[in-house]
Amino acid sequence: MSIKVAVVGAAGRMGQTICTAVEQARDMELVSQIDVGSHINADTLAGAEVAIEFTVPTVTESNVMALLDSGVDVVVGTSGWNEEMLARVEKKAKETGRSVIVAPNYGLSAVLLMHFSKLAARYFESAEVIEMHHPDKVDAPSGTAVSTAKVIGEARREAGMGASPDNTQEDQGGSRGSTIDGVHVHAVRLRGLNAHEEVLFGNPAEQLVIRQDSFNRSSFMPGVLLAVRSVQGRGGLTYGLDKVMGL
Amino acid sequence: MSIKVAVVGAAGRMGQTICTAVEQARDMELVSQIDVGSHINADTLAGAEVAIEFTVPTVTESNVMALLDSGVDVVVGTSGWNEEMLARVEKKAKETGRSVIVAPNYGLSAVLLMHFSKLAARYFESAEVIEMHHPDKVDAPSGTAVSTAKVIGEARREAGMGASPDNTQEDQGGSRGSTIDGVHVHAVRLRGLNAHEEVLFGNPAEQLVIRQDSFNRSSFMPGVLLAVRSVQGRGGLTYGLDKVMGL
Amino acid sequence: MSIKVAVVGAAGRMGQTICTAVEQARDMELVSQIDVGSHINADTLAGAEVAIEFTVPTVTESNVMALLDSGVDVVVGTSGWNEEMLARVEKKAKETGRSVIVAPNYGLSAVLLMHFSKLAARYFESAEVIEMHHPDKVDAPSGTAVSTAKVIGEARREAGMGASPDNTQEDQGGSRGSTIDGVHVHAVRLRGLNAHEEVLFGNPAEQLVIRQDSFNRSSFMPGVLLAVRSVQGRGGLTYGLDKVMGL
Amino acid sequence: MSIKVAVVGAAGRMGQTICTAVEQARDMELVSQIDVGSHINADTLAGAEVAIEFTVPTVTESNVMALLDSGVDVVVGTSGWNEEMLARVEKKAKETGRSVIVAPNYGLSAVLLMHFSKLAARYFESAEVIEMHHPDKVDAPSGTAVSTAKVIGEARREAGMGASPDNTQEDQGGSRGSTIDGVHVHAVRLRGLNAHEEVLFGNPAEQLVIRQDSFNRSSFMPGVLLAVRSVQGRGGLTYGLDKVMGL
Repeated sequence: MSIKVAVVGAAGRMGQTICTAVEQARDMELVSQIDVGSHINADTLAGAEVAIEFTVPTVTESNVMALLDSGVDVVVGTSGWNEEMLARVEKKAKETGRSVIVAPNYGLSAVLLMHFSKLAARYFESAEVIEMHHPDKVDAPSGTAVSTAKVIGEARREAGMGASPDNTQEDQGGSRGSTIDGVHVHAVRLRGLNAHEEVLFGNPAEQLVIRQDSFNRSSFMPGVLLAVRSVQGRGGLTYGLDKVMGL
Repeated sequence: MSIKVAVVGAAGRMGQTICTAVEQARDMELVSQIDVGSHINADTLAGAEVAIEFTVPTVTESNVMALLDSGVDVVVGTSGWNEEMLARVEKKAKETGRSVIVAPNYGLSAVLLMHFSKLAARYFESAEVIEMHHPDKVDAPSGTAVSTAKVIGEARREAGMGASPDNTQEDQGGSRGSTIDGVHVHAVRLRGLNAHEEVLFGNPAEQLVIRQDSFNRSSFMPGVLLAVRSVQGRGGLTYGLDKVMGL
Repeated sequence: MSIKVAVVGAAGRMGQTICTAVEQARDMELVSQIDVGSHINADTLAGAEVAIEFTVPTVTESNVMALLDSGVDVVVGTSGWNEEMLARVEKKAKETGRSVIVAPNYGLSAVLLMHFSKLAARYFESAEVIEMHHPDKVDAPSGTAVSTAKVIGEARREAGMGASPDNTQEDQGGSRGSTIDGVHVHAVRLRGLNAHEEVLFGNPAEQLVIRQDSFNRSSFMPGVLLAVRSVQGRGGLTYGLDKVMGL
Repeated sequence: MSIKVAVVGAAGRMGQTICTAVEQARDMELVSQIDVGSHINADTLAGAEVAIEFTVPTVTESNVMALLDSGVDVVVGTSGWNEEMLARVEKKAKETGRSVIVAPNYGLSAVLLMHFSKLAARYFESAEVIEMHHPDKVDAPSGTAVSTAKVIGEARREAGMGASPDNTQEDQGGSRGSTIDGVHVHAVRLRGLNAHEEVLFGNPAEQLVIRQDSFNRSSFMPGVLLAVRSVQGRGGLTYGLDKVMGL
């Protein structure tokens, strides 16, 4: 029995990538593609059990509300969700008896890297983060790298550890990078790369490196499909792919 | 209050490295160095609370027994422990009200790599292991790499996954390496290296790499010291540094 | 003044990638797309100065002959060229006063990796090659890895060096990989990867690593465009992108 | 016939490492160890043919002068040499008919990395440098990384290339690192590391990475021994290990 899936935001580049991934999944059936200009209702959903919502921050909440009212479970990849939006959607999910997954990142390797960094942080004297992206990216460091540094910084604090050792006395050019929550973060911009992150942990005579590579946007598909397979029957709101993965 | 520590096997190269590490630890005091020719008893232990035993397989069990009878807790790094030996030592520890930690590997980064590999395995289509060592090593692949492959293979099996995809039809020279529990393992031997391991996980457009480096034998010291700090009051036998780390 | 370019084999996937690359190059103009069913002559070439030939081994030589007779210089990426074919094309190029570049690999990073490996080989005790590809590849190790190993083996021999040190006495599973010209070669197959190669050189306490990544087939475009920009006026036959690059 | 070698600065940590390396070299014989308190003359040199001078900037020039006057060829690893010092030593070497090699870096992998970076620079749109050292280092970025960036910047300029593409519009924390001659340089400080450098080159869909690792100070020994084997009969002054290696 395959899961009947609707894609909301189907016309965009990410939407098209998702439609292709759903069509190629053996246990799923793509029954509806919805985009700007189409209403969300039982007719347009065409029997879908789960909807994947990848649109824009301005319309995502009202889309999710309409989807829950239409009786489908929802997997949300649009960015821009805050506490208030999440609270309203959780309330609606409970009222309608449906389930919603919202995640800021559907990259399995990125979510695992962050989880592993959290676990490893307390065991190493030193920790630094290097993120590498294509040169068209406008912000540095990446949001994921900032989140990773915060996770490490927090784990170190909880373990009663101070800053990583650093005897640098002269660094006129700023080669030591940005310091986020006590963790140095470096951003590389290189033609040919897409989105990559490396975390280095060091002890005397020992190093642990965790690296993840997203070679193109289809790297998010395994995470999106995992959420589609996991959303039915969860109840209420689940925030973060790590929760879906049971980490 | 510092922990009073005895080192059994103090004259060997590893023993000397351990003595130095204990002396440099702010929360420990090295009160006794015991080696071949010295008896293990209250006199030679000189008030030690914890003993670190790094000797050879033929004498390790009787050393641990004598240490427990002498009223100290024990951290054991000698290899060659089997189920029967462990059962006897556990019994003795309970009788004497003392605690023992036995671990096949005191490298924090190696233990974390294996734990993370176990957690990640079910989420990726492909997994391979590359271990790299100095060229004087006589066995290939390394015991740690074999253990890592088994952990990955078992996790994949539990998740109902088959072998990693591999369409190789021609490989006369054996470049695809050794296959352990369905996981390909490659062994590199290179002058200048010491002991290193890399695990690669792959999904469409996505890669996760976990790597650990042990640059020399002092890389085991953080793990040994962690065990010394954790052994008192545990009771009975703890097997594996992962248990000590709460993984 | 832009270079007027024809693409022969324009309908294939590589051909389409090349057409796009030529169109996006500021100093080139795509004036002709030729494929099966079209004749190669002054009419179909439509004023082209340089033709890029990426077809199949069975027709590549006759295509190049026709292109030279039509008065254009030619850049050839089709595989399967042997000594006799090259000799005939060189003769024709000289007769017609035109220039031809034939190369087995248009990846700049792959060509540089091989050149650097050749230069470095004599200075290191140990050398090994690891190639990594997508799991749909049918042969292992890759042709490029075999070429790299041969280049290293030959350089070591010329320098009077023996095999890399290797004290392995037990390797039942074949984890040490394939040995090509005295150099161990390992092949990794991982979903998500495309084509990657890593060469490791080792001396006491020292390592040099050269790695190249081709993330998709458009990685060959910089090399193809470089050949197009370099072919006019060279005269005769140039074999190998390394020669074009002056390595 | 082995080369008779004297070590000047033999009592220091680097000096001791050199003495051990010379003793272990099959084609060399350590005949003299000279340090503060001993004069440099035919007696103390004890028949040495080549002297290795690793002392401090304040005495290195006078040591080299005395060595040349004593009739030995000299390999110099002390830092702090400027144009004037080099000119005076070259004059003295010619007068005495002896040979001197002075090099700022005896790491073969570091010298090769720099040479390869120079060759590769013109072929890639993007280039960045990441250096990694132990956290006790007081300056950042390392001198070698600065030299590497300059070599790349110069090669790009000669090829008429502008800066690497970088669309970063927001980087409050300085994560993009130091910019040296148009090349971004990042400095990592991590317990467990010694001295490591990585150069990344990028084109559309393609990456070339050159990395070198110095795991401890004995990593310089192969370069020092190469210089000892090469100095006799060269005549005058040779500056830089790259010249000795014929790069």
